[in-house]
Amino acid sequence: MPIPSPIAWTVNHAVRILDQTLLPGDEMYRDLDSVEAVAEAIRTLRVRGAPLIGIAAAMGVVQAMRRGGAGGQAGLQRVREACRVLGSTRPTAVNLHWALDRMLRRAERACGAGEDLRDALIAEAIAIWDEDRAMCDRIGELGASLIPAGSTVCTVCNAGALATGGIGTALAPVYTLQRVGRSPHVVIPETRPLLQGSRLTAWELTQAGVDCTLIGDGMIASRLRLGDIACVIVGADRIAANGDVANKIGTYGLALAARAHGIPFYVAAPSSTLDPATPNGAAIPIEQREASEVASWQGTRTAPVGIKVWNPAFDMTPAKLITAIITDKGIFNPSEIGHSQAVGQQHRIE
Amino acid sequence: MPIPSPIAWTVNHAVRILDQTLLPGDEMYRDLDSVEAVAEAIRTLRVRGAPLIGIAAAMGVVQAMRRGGAGGQAGLQRVREACRVLGSTRPTAVNLHWALDRMLRRAERACGAGEDLRDALIAEAIAIWDEDRAMCDRIGELGASLIPAGSTVCTVCNAGALATGGIGTALAPVYTLQRVGRSPHVVIPETRPLLQGSRLTAWELTQAGVDCTLIGDGMIASRLRLGDIACVIVGADRIAANGDVANKIGTYGLALAARAHGIPFYVAAPSSTLDPATPNGAAIPIEQREASEVASWQGTRTAPVGIKVWNPAFDMTPAKLITAIITDKGIFNPSEIGHSQAVGQQHRIE
Repeated sequence: MPIPSPIAWTVNHAVRILDQTLLPGDEMYRDLDSVEAVAEAIRTLRVRGAPLIGIAAAMGVVQAMRRGGAGGQAGLQRVREACRVLGSTRPTAVNLHWALDRMLRRAERACGAGEDLRDALIAEAIAIWDEDRAMCDRIGELGASLIPAGSTVCTVCNAGALATGGIGTALAPVYTLQRVGRSPHVVIPETRPLLQGSRLTAWELTQAGVDCTLIGDGMIASRLRLGDIACVIVGADRIAANGDVANKIGTYGLALAARAHGIPFYVAAPSSTLDPATPNGAAIPIEQREASEVASWQGTRTAPVGIKVWNPAFDMTPAKLITAIITDKGIFNPSEIGHSQAVGQQHRIE
Repeated sequence: MPIPSPIAWTVNHAVRILDQTLLPGDEMYRDLDSVEAVAEAIRTLRVRGAPLIGIAAAMGVVQAMRRGGAGGQAGLQRVREACRVLGSTRPTAVNLHWALDRMLRRAERACGAGEDLRDALIAEAIAIWDEDRAMCDRIGELGASLIPAGSTVCTVCNAGALATGGIGTALAPVYTLQRVGRSPHVVIPETRPLLQGSRLTAWELTQAGVDCTLIGDGMIASRLRLGDIACVIVGADRIAANGDVANKIGTYGLALAARAHGIPFYVAAPSSTLDPATPNGAAIPIEQREASEVASWQGTRTAPVGIKVWNPAFDMTPAKLITAIITDKGIFNPSEIGHSQAVGQQHRIE
């Protein structure tokens, strides 16, 4: 059974996305041919997952050149504006800024060299996507070595194919093992408020034929206590220089429960998620989202009118709770992530 | 603003319940005049909360005598059958069996003394309710001494007025402090899958005018890390002899997070929740509920068709994570609960 793919180019190099807000009920694809449409899709989580946001944003920059024409400084100005619009969509994931920075630098080089700006942007977006797919494959190979045959693993949110341009980050080792007939069983917390666990991870694993079990977020600690979970594997939205990790809200509680039960806790992420410019987790901006995500459900209120809500989209897991960080550049102890070769290719928009 | 009350007698001593499955959208009351109707209301969580289940079951036994007539052994047989039906509704809460045992013994005494069976059952149900209300008040007084003025506390699920015949167990100290103008701010995890936190606790606190904030279950650990929460207070469905506590799923993870942040973790429960016949948490039966509670929402699927689900209604928090247990008989260290005066009045159906 095929692993789903959440993004594609149309024949005209518009961005075709699988609308993840409609899963698991509807599998609907949308073609986006403007910067604003791509920005809206990222902002509303139609496209989500730190690596996929980077790819989608890069493909979104191409849309700035959609109607052709402008080269030189005028074109470069349109690229800068596209990067500004796309970069303002979500504050926590660092891949977004990393990808936009690459696109902008590529545009500057193209201008300097008199290349066709649109062709150069398409080539760079394709390169970002190709590299992400290769990083996923490499994370899968490395991570698979950490998972005993026939075991059960636990993840959170969705760090799978739907979050990347390839076979995922946290789920990459699962798919890698599945290819050789040794797929682990995956325990999936539903991941409120937006249910990326039940709507997305359960969906893509079911599509791909991987055995899995859904639980509520409050059941995590009890499920880990049963004693059959070999390890926890989660993705990351940003990894600070000291090895602290920002990831979907609920990751920190999962890490505390894993530590209490002596279960290894792995973070799997492409090296573009490492952010040496952020010294520690406390310096990572955490996106606060709308109250209605928690206080209502598909238009029906679940809490009294006017209730106050605290709704951070991410949390910070301290390095001391992380057994290892699996990247495309190797498996690292969190304490060595800031001064390892893992960060050798990093760049930031300052 | 009044604290809501979830149960009442009708003029004919039928049971009037607030249908808690319809909150917070609808405040609907239902009159139940048969044993089976009360059993159905308990089974489907229209009436829920360990102490309230006990009261509702006791009032349900009265319905066995609703059409009058039978006294003596025939009447006693009807009471035994009612206790069997009501006792089979939910396996975890011990108050249910404790209340039914009291009703049965009262019926036996009434038969032996030639009393009117129905009058005796009504009197016993009223006594159980009155005692519960007094226990709530006492828990409130004792628990209030543990909460600093103007502080923030965190609970889970609903152990408030809607779970008891009085001002609640975990929320009793909150209401007690509110009466003297020192109400704490209450942080409420929504408590999936059935949302007793958002639907019930947020509703009753809002009705009563207590300041509160709703969070997702996965946000608990991050919220506790903010550093402003003075203590956690939860209810209990059963307390084993060694101080282990069964309570709503999610309590154990909350306790782990509280321990990680050095926050006191209190369990508040009437002494009828103590079960000296159960040696430890591992011996407490944990109710498994239907997959659809996690995999769908008001008829809309949130996960792929056919997904496996693990859905325990309760979890077990080990005594070592509990700072103190607040009962109507005093505040106890969990290690002393099994041999304290707290269990002096306990009885079990064998």
